[in-house]
Amino acid sequence: MKNLKNYILGKPLKSSDIHHEKFSVFRGLPVLSSDAISSVAYACEEILWVFVPVLGIASFTYLSWVTLSIIGLLAILIFSYRQTIDSYPKGGGSYIVSRENLGEIPSLVAGASLTIDYILTVAVSTTAGVAAITSAFEFLLPYKVEITLFIILIIAIGNLRGISESAKLFSFPTYIFILSSVIMIVFGLIKYFVYGVEPISNPNIPRQVHDLTILLFLKGFSAGCTALTGVEAISDGVANFKEPATKNAKRVLYLLFIIVIVMFSGISYLATIYTAVPTLDRTVISQIASQVFGDNSIMFYIMQFATTLILTMAANTAYSDFPLLLSFIARDGYAPRQFAKRGDRLSYSNGIIFLSVAAGILVGVFKGENHYLLPLYAVGVFISFTLSQSGMVMRWYKTKGKGWKHKAFINGVGAIITFITAIIIAINKFMHGAWLVLVLVPLAIIVMKRVNRHYKRVAAQLSLENNYFPKFSESQAKRFIIPVASLNESVVKTINYAKCLSNDITAFHISVDDAETEKLKMKWKKYSIDIPLVVKKHEYREVVNPLVKYVTSDEFTGGNKDDMITVVIPQFITKKWWGNILHNQTALFLKRILLQHRNIAVISVPFIIEKYED
Amino acid sequence: MKNLKNYILGKPLKSSDIHHEKFSVFRGLPVLSSDAISSVAYACEEILWVFVPVLGIASFTYLSWVTLSIIGLLAILIFSYRQTIDSYPKGGGSYIVSRENLGEIPSLVAGASLTIDYILTVAVSTTAGVAAITSAFEFLLPYKVEITLFIILIIAIGNLRGISESAKLFSFPTYIFILSSVIMIVFGLIKYFVYGVEPISNPNIPRQVHDLTILLFLKGFSAGCTALTGVEAISDGVANFKEPATKNAKRVLYLLFIIVIVMFSGISYLATIYTAVPTLDRTVISQIASQVFGDNSIMFYIMQFATTLILTMAANTAYSDFPLLLSFIARDGYAPRQFAKRGDRLSYSNGIIFLSVAAGILVGVFKGENHYLLPLYAVGVFISFTLSQSGMVMRWYKTKGKGWKHKAFINGVGAIITFITAIIIAINKFMHGAWLVLVLVPLAIIVMKRVNRHYKRVAAQLSLENNYFPKFSESQAKRFIIPVASLNESVVKTINYAKCLSNDITAFHISVDDAETEKLKMKWKKYSIDIPLVVKKHEYREVVNPLVKYVTSDEFTGGNKDDMITVVIPQFITKKWWGNILHNQTALFLKRILLQHRNIAVISVPFIIEKYED
Repeated sequence: MKNLKNYILGKPLKSSDIHHEKFSVFRGLPVLSSDAISSVAYACEEILWVFVPVLGIASFTYLSWVTLSIIGLLAILIFSYRQTIDSYPKGGGSYIVSRENLGEIPSLVAGASLTIDYILTVAVSTTAGVAAITSAFEFLLPYKVEITLFIILIIAIGNLRGISESAKLFSFPTYIFILSSVIMIVFGLIKYFVYGVEPISNPNIPRQVHDLTILLFLKGFSAGCTALTGVEAISDGVANFKEPATKNAKRVLYLLFIIVIVMFSGISYLATIYTAVPTLDRTVISQIASQVFGDNSIMFYIMQFATTLILTMAANTAYSDFPLLLSFIARDGYAPRQFAKRGDRLSYSNGIIFLSVAAGILVGVFKGENHYLLPLYAVGVFISFTLSQSGMVMRWYKTKGKGWKHKAFINGVGAIITFITAIIIAINKFMHGAWLVLVLVPLAIIVMKRVNRHYKRVAAQLSLENNYFPKFSESQAKRFIIPVASLNESVVKTINYAKCLSNDITAFHISVDDAETEKLKMKWKKYSIDIPLVVKKHEYREVVNPLVKYVTSDEFTGGNKDDMITVVIPQFITKKWWGNILHNQTALFLKRILLQHRNIAVISVPFIIEKYED
Repeated sequence: MKNLKNYILGKPLKSSDIHHEKFSVFRGLPVLSSDAISSVAYACEEILWVFVPVLGIASFTYLSWVTLSIIGLLAILIFSYRQTIDSYPKGGGSYIVSRENLGEIPSLVAGASLTIDYILTVAVSTTAGVAAITSAFEFLLPYKVEITLFIILIIAIGNLRGISESAKLFSFPTYIFILSSVIMIVFGLIKYFVYGVEPISNPNIPRQVHDLTILLFLKGFSAGCTALTGVEAISDGVANFKEPATKNAKRVLYLLFIIVIVMFSGISYLATIYTAVPTLDRTVISQIASQVFGDNSIMFYIMQFATTLILTMAANTAYSDFPLLLSFIARDGYAPRQFAKRGDRLSYSNGIIFLSVAAGILVGVFKGENHYLLPLYAVGVFISFTLSQSGMVMRWYKTKGKGWKHKAFINGVGAIITFITAIIIAINKFMHGAWLVLVLVPLAIIVMKRVNRHYKRVAAQLSLENNYFPKFSESQAKRFIIPVASLNESVVKTINYAKCLSNDITAFHISVDDAETEKLKMKWKKYSIDIPLVVKKHEYREVVNPLVKYVTSDEFTGGNKDDMITVVIPQFITKKWWGNILHNQTALFLKRILLQHRNIAVISVPFIIEKYED
């Protein structure tokens, strides 16, 4: 088992290896930005889906407006996050920023929204990737859920191997996508402007039925805002960069900005030139690619292939970011502590597993259908954008450092605009599923608050400041009781061990079958076991409760309810994992019940079943 | 939780209540025969599916031949099983009969075949029932897997409540089906013979393309043999009847015989008169019913409804029979012992749960499609028929009681005919899935053999006949070690308890974080804990293995490898079930690893986290 694990996940790493596991700009860009870059692949298309049915050919005029507004919004976000990275060199996602500057509830809102959005990112991007695969190979369609789950598994394993390994594994598709998109844009422009090739007129464009209204513009805008998901990832993951971490993180942020501007505006512009209108079976990008490169050219297929890969890889951003976020939340005591512990390979393995399982469940519940999942998406991102920006404003206001007004202004503008965007998205997508997010966020907050309350309570009860140091009487602690079903080697071993620690031992037997009990009594005599055997009859074929009742009764404890008594349990141990299934699980169940009592200690004495001799 | 369980499953029953839980002839018939009776609903149809495409209208001539052969086979089986019931008043399924008379391997073959067939019975009959429902209400089609699983759940709960309760719940549909079938047969005959109503000629019958060959006859015969599945159930379940059990069981057997003869021959004959040819959307029975009663008459709908119900209820036969079979196998040590224990409600709850889960998995894997499952069916039944009959022959031969030759002849004929039938079915259905059964049976046998070997080995090692009575030295058993992560109330409680039992205690700390370790050392001094604290540094953020290594090292044990030492572990206990998720599971994991060592005893000292005060 261990070898298999090492083979799949790699050998365990030392704590001091941690700096080797961090990434450079070249490795960091694909890992932390594939989500943002991949959304360019469909943002333009999402806008056209809103516009074309109403505006017809005029859609393309307004497409550039929306594209420019979104790039403007991105610019504000980039400037804002540059400041966040400077201020939070250990990683400053909206959770941390709002926690420090806005207080508990806003930070939990940010944490919950991000959690939901990261899970959705994994589910949405893997199903989108698989949809691209199954539309090429139709015989795979019945297995799309299984394929999606398999891809999630692969990404999870890659990430469990450690962050720099996952960077190696997953950086390739991102660069392929960027490169081929840029080639497409350059070729497309040259073809049109230099060679003057006339694009094929598109027969699918409906007539314009209405003028652009503000409402329609906002709808298109909120549809296109999916292009901005994933920007937060970089500021969250500053700690994952090699030194100088903040500098490297900012470099990646700028690179991302440039890439998104080039690709988003380039693709929008080409869509306009080539009048690419999305249909159910042809994406905008594939239409552009087929006109630029020709329908069966190699570049066309490379472009399709790269799109599929990048869509799938966007999930990886969530994997490098979410476990880190969860570890922050866990460290603050709002999530189970296991999420704050690094695994064998220095990755936050529990967070990775949680993300995979949650996304897998979503994929299963929604049967791998992307269009059910998409509307849930993006609200959470913009809620957390708003909180993070507002937090920065508060920070500048409090610290009042050099040029704070200027900085607060930038973040303030970011906060207001992302807030408005969040509202636009929530309203536009409300009926299609965004309501679910608005239900889940408060629910997640309640859970986090309860977890926190629990940890606080435990800490209070464990504190030595209480000055309560319990003392126990030796005579009571030495009152040993051994539950016995039949007399065998294991029981004898237990008795002999117990005798080393105490000379006040009782054996206890619950009779469910008279013949068995007689046999036990006879053996007891035959092997002259010199401790008393108490037998109680019970009608309900149940062993655990009568024992617990007897052990806690005055008859046994002599009324010293607060003192400790000791139950000694013989326990089978088999070398094979399936061995435990074959023995009645009574011992385990018994222990669980007994340990619910503050004054019962339980000793397990193992009896190892040796390997076969044959 | 307990109240919920009691509400769903009913209050626990005393062991002495067991006779109240047994059933009369009236209750036993539906429970143990619904499988056999329900198969009449489709046996005639299965034969026609084979004949009609080749023989056309001539099919109906040969239908009566096949029907008569199958009824003849049934007669042989009934006579054979009558003798089995007499000889095995405690229940004599083919497993028991072949175990006693043929030896280990034949009995395991019978056990494995029956297990597979019972699981298939549940899967096949529930999916068939749901198919009937979804063809009436098409909007339910996408949820057929979920509905099937829900029905399995309902039947499982009914059976977990106890056998007589399940009899009450499920006897109603069987009687409705019998009654409405008989009414249909009587009406159909009267209409034709008394009133001389001319049946509508069926336009769907293809031309005859071939004469009847032996091969085709055998194919039709093996298709119709599904009518005989479920006959075994009565002889298996003799122990479930009220006294006089064998008499009551035989009465049910005869009743079953009469019912199957009347219904099977009646339906076959009506199919001939009314030339009912099965099509994809109309079953033979529904065609007959529509001609006899009229297309939208109440009786037509009652007949359809009753068919649906009885198909679903056939699953119930498997539920009342399989857990009993599994309990026999478990008692002989070939299956985990838990299957031999009665639950709170005196039913074999673990067998019921196993059957439900296995059938549920089948339904899920085959996506609720009946025609994938059907070919797997019936081979197992006839293998076990053959073994049971052969076993009876051996028995007569060995005991040589009064009239043994006569009795041996009856069982011998049964054995030969069922053997031939098994081969016919296996060959005819081999490519369609029967091969899977021929793979699964040996696999199941291997598992049962291994389970048995394990139990035997455990018994041998536990036997006091080994005359090995281990003695331990007190000084060594009192070498206590307490693993400590930080100093808190729980640790102090553990130390104080340990002091009552020993005065040789070491505390052991693994340092993964220098600051934490310093804090611990300081506290150790501050609260003047008077036991030595050993600190070891470890590089891999791993606590369990270094501790195990230290505890088993010569440094700690002083080289006495065979003596017992004691590890004392402070353990958090939370009152809420989710509390355990919130604490690092190190203590549990540690215990599991430590108990793998024959010479380490583990003491758990609970620290109960009290309820909230707010």
